[in-house]
Amino acid sequence: MRVVIDCMGGDNAPSEIVKGALMAAKEYDVEIILVGDEEGIKKEISEEFKNIMNRLQIIHTTEIITNDESPTLAIRRKKDSSMVVGLKYLKEGKADAFISAGSTGALLAGGLFIVGRIDGIDRPCLAPVIPGEKGHFMLLDSGANAECKPKNILQFGIMGSIYSKKVLGKENPKVGLVNIGAEEEKGTEFIKQSFNMLKNSNLNFIGNIEPREIPKGECDVVLSDGFVGNVILKLYEGVAQTIFDILKREIYSSLIYKIGGAILKPVFKKFKKDFDYTEYGGAILLGVNKVVIKAHGSSNAKAIKNAVRQSINCVKGNVIELIREEIKKNKEVDS
Amino acid sequence: MRVVIDCMGGDNAPSEIVKGALMAAKEYDVEIILVGDEEGIKKEISEEFKNIMNRLQIIHTTEIITNDESPTLAIRRKKDSSMVVGLKYLKEGKADAFISAGSTGALLAGGLFIVGRIDGIDRPCLAPVIPGEKGHFMLLDSGANAECKPKNILQFGIMGSIYSKKVLGKENPKVGLVNIGAEEEKGTEFIKQSFNMLKNSNLNFIGNIEPREIPKGECDVVLSDGFVGNVILKLYEGVAQTIFDILKREIYSSLIYKIGGAILKPVFKKFKKDFDYTEYGGAILLGVNKVVIKAHGSSNAKAIKNAVRQSINCVKGNVIELIREEIKKNKEVDS
Repeated sequence: MRVVIDCMGGDNAPSEIVKGALMAAKEYDVEIILVGDEEGIKKEISEEFKNIMNRLQIIHTTEIITNDESPTLAIRRKKDSSMVVGLKYLKEGKADAFISAGSTGALLAGGLFIVGRIDGIDRPCLAPVIPGEKGHFMLLDSGANAECKPKNILQFGIMGSIYSKKVLGKENPKVGLVNIGAEEEKGTEFIKQSFNMLKNSNLNFIGNIEPREIPKGECDVVLSDGFVGNVILKLYEGVAQTIFDILKREIYSSLIYKIGGAILKPVFKKFKKDFDYTEYGGAILLGVNKVVIKAHGSSNAKAIKNAVRQSINCVKGNVIELIREEIKKNKEVDS
Repeated sequence: MRVVIDCMGGDNAPSEIVKGALMAAKEYDVEIILVGDEEGIKKEISEEFKNIMNRLQIIHTTEIITNDESPTLAIRRKKDSSMVVGLKYLKEGKADAFISAGSTGALLAGGLFIVGRIDGIDRPCLAPVIPGEKGHFMLLDSGANAECKPKNILQFGIMGSIYSKKVLGKENPKVGLVNIGAEEEKGTEFIKQSFNMLKNSNLNFIGNIEPREIPKGECDVVLSDGFVGNVILKLYEGVAQTIFDILKREIYSSLIYKIGGAILKPVFKKFKKDFDYTEYGGAILLGVNKVVIKAHGSSNAKAIKNAVRQSINCVKGNVIELIREEIKKNKEVDS
């Protein structure tokens, strides 16, 4: 299995990206293709990785796509960027999965224009795995499509259920629709239509899920349009971060609190680990023809390593093929 | 000043509602009209409140509007419900403000059909005050209108700014639009149009606000449609609650952690107090002709007392009249 990695994307590129890729190559049975500035990449390959050099390949590129430029233009024009070259490798079958911590917009554009949509999928979506109280859950769409149609939501549900089963090991994933009330008649026209499509599908649809319930993690596949999904994703992070910032400031404000804080350090640490998004890798771009993973912009080496593990599980779980078959079946029922 | 209180709405009615109303009558210079089951209300009036009886009035009603019934039908049919009778008192000028912890939907319907909209306001909205790291902020609309138009958002901004100035004491309230990116060109068509209207208004518009930034409390007036606003409100509560549930469970899991927890008790307590929504009263229904306040369904006596204080500040701050004037001015500019 071969995973191609964009070494030039993200806040910590290329150093942490390359380190994470090397850690993955050492730990997993995988070949890694590193794309980016050759000199920068080579600098990170220390002695300890010399014995896995036969499973590494470096593709030198000269351009970098940044967060500030138009995603579509960047993908079209920067032919020698690490992202475009990496995605082309994937498209041409020279690799099985692609990982980037770079511009989300550019990755979406590249996924669509270079890798291409799965037949029958109208809109690919971004699907991160998020930690909750009773377990982790997927959130689809978390930001690829600010506006959606009910049939997109149904497709997100189908794709999320397959991923949840095959990669996260959930037997019969519970699918919920984000709504501002638990009752069927709540919400906008779009939500009501989406509800009906989900109800009539063969998904394990448990109905509306109120935002207050999301962090409990009892619903495995949480569905919404990409605007609301992105609000959920970012507010989730923001509230948790703010709470810990405040607690930390208070604890540091007096000696006695510092002692209390020291005693509870393992509790805070466990919490931080349990709620560490990087444990689950990145957000998969579901609905394109190959495994494409968007790692968090602030990814460190561990996050990249976990994204490689995630991509291996996706390929082994045959996720793309299963989505293709399921969407085809659904289309046949429709027509 | 007279405040009329629906004693039959909310999880803790009538006991906590009446208690809170009595506490307010004792503390503030206000007359209180208690509407609901007379016997149930009287039971709560203990000796300590006998000396304020001259500032209390009880209106006996026989019906209760529940959360399970159709709001509009309930308002139309249950003529002798505590909510309808209370709102009519308000409408007829027998009171200056109305508070209820009952059905949000029914209160919205009652606000519209009984109290009526302010001239020029297309959609009233629910506007709670939410605690943030650096200060509290308003969120409009937090659930009255699942679907909105850009001009509704502008009106929410005008109303929120006035309330923020007059009741929360913010000199030049910063107004932000919830969006999934800080840049002007981000988001849906609705968001882009709303952005333009806000930019061209005389509000202190600071641009898009990303959900991650909301809990910091640097933006005083946070604007969104009621669907997204309700998601924000409920997820905010949900994430905070989940984090504290997990920490509590962990702390109780061992003796040494319990000791650490005991040392940090004042820290947790301060946090809880700072983030206690009841400190700020309830969510005001902005855009109707009088002061109407929706207290949280789980309100205790303190929350009701604070909602009375909030309603007094609203009336004293002349919020409704100022909104009426500002909307009129805006309309004249438009035409």
